[in-house]
Amino acid sequence: MPKLRVHNFSMSLDGYAAGPLQDLKHPLGRGGERLHEWVFETVAGHAMFDGGGGGSTGIDNEFLERGDRGIGATIMGRNMFGPIRGPWLDEEWTGWWGGNPPYHHPVFVLTRYPRPPLVMEGGTTFNFTNDSIEDVLERAFTAANGADVRLGGGVSTVQQYLRASLVDELHVALVPVLLGSGERLFDHLDGGPTGMERVEFAASDGVVHVVFARR
Amino acid sequence: MPKLRVHNFSMSLDGYAAGPLQDLKHPLGRGGERLHEWVFETVAGHAMFDGGGGGSTGIDNEFLERGDRGIGATIMGRNMFGPIRGPWLDEEWTGWWGGNPPYHHPVFVLTRYPRPPLVMEGGTTFNFTNDSIEDVLERAFTAANGADVRLGGGVSTVQQYLRASLVDELHVALVPVLLGSGERLFDHLDGGPTGMERVEFAASDGVVHVVFARR
Repeated sequence: MPKLRVHNFSMSLDGYAAGPLQDLKHPLGRGGERLHEWVFETVAGHAMFDGGGGGSTGIDNEFLERGDRGIGATIMGRNMFGPIRGPWLDEEWTGWWGGNPPYHHPVFVLTRYPRPPLVMEGGTTFNFTNDSIEDVLERAFTAANGADVRLGGGVSTVQQYLRASLVDELHVALVPVLLGSGERLFDHLDGGPTGMERVEFAASDGVVHVVFARR
Repeated sequence: MPKLRVHNFSMSLDGYAAGPLQDLKHPLGRGGERLHEWVFETVAGHAMFDGGGGGSTGIDNEFLERGDRGIGATIMGRNMFGPIRGPWLDEEWTGWWGGNPPYHHPVFVLTRYPRPPLVMEGGTTFNFTNDSIEDVLERAFTAANGADVRLGGGVSTVQQYLRASLVDELHVALVPVLLGSGERLFDHLDGGPTGMERVEFAASDGVVHVVFARR
């Protein structure tokens, strides 16, 4: 059975997966970029964001690579797609990732304000939908054509699927810093992850990786 | 200058330092004992709680031992001393630790309901006080006579001292499990730990140790 997987979901020691006050200059909220510095230090991170060259191998790189393996579609919330709130004023915004986003497969963006699909270079198509999370998951599994579906983020999107007990694998990358405020991953879950058990725990010299799987 | 230090403060991945519903049979709240299993697996844990014999050495043991080194007095909240709430009905309750508690120095218990000091075997005296946290710290430093003061817990006691920026060292022992509910360490801090920086980060095969120090 194909799975719904969350990978490399970075979180501070005090539980925040994003800083406060996300905007155009702060896609991860104020201070949130500290949670993702580790990504840019790896081989896979370089390949993903600046075309390759350099970076570290090792545990962090392995976990990062694993997040792309066997994935045929991605689901993300609208805040992960961009900083715009409310109705789209125009269709100029095409995501944070430039013309060739690092997905290369169908992406489903949850939003109350649908708009026409956005076909990007490199095989990524952004589909905008206000369907229920269950229906979107169904469509994503169909689009993935037997491969797994990745649940990208942000926090509230992951929480919705956790509450519905639809997440099969959850990989948290804990970064031992304090952010002080922001959005917490492990809030508003109503016991959603109760049925998950820890299946992996490994630390590099900067990040703690913990993986939970649905029993 | 002597320091106020928090050591081996266990916390789940979802941020809880104690489970919900503390009572006589659940001194750490329901499920909270999972946060402390690692302690009982170490040499120092055995020595502390069952008179020695067996247990592991290694990172966890080192951190546990370090928590007792150079300490001359302890401050704790009333909930760490016992499960009774409101006025003391009698003076029968003498703590969770039996006749010879593992402190062996003066202990200050914060409570709105003072009672006479309790002199135990092995050098531990429990002093009950409703003084301000600053005054209690002052008394504890005096009692420690040049050594450091340990801030024991529970959660709300540590939070009070963190809010007041009085904690010099904070060692969190993160246990990668999910508790789902309980009391969070990193809540209600009003930016208190903002002035602290991470000075240590090490993981055993079951626990992540992170130490913050006041700049």
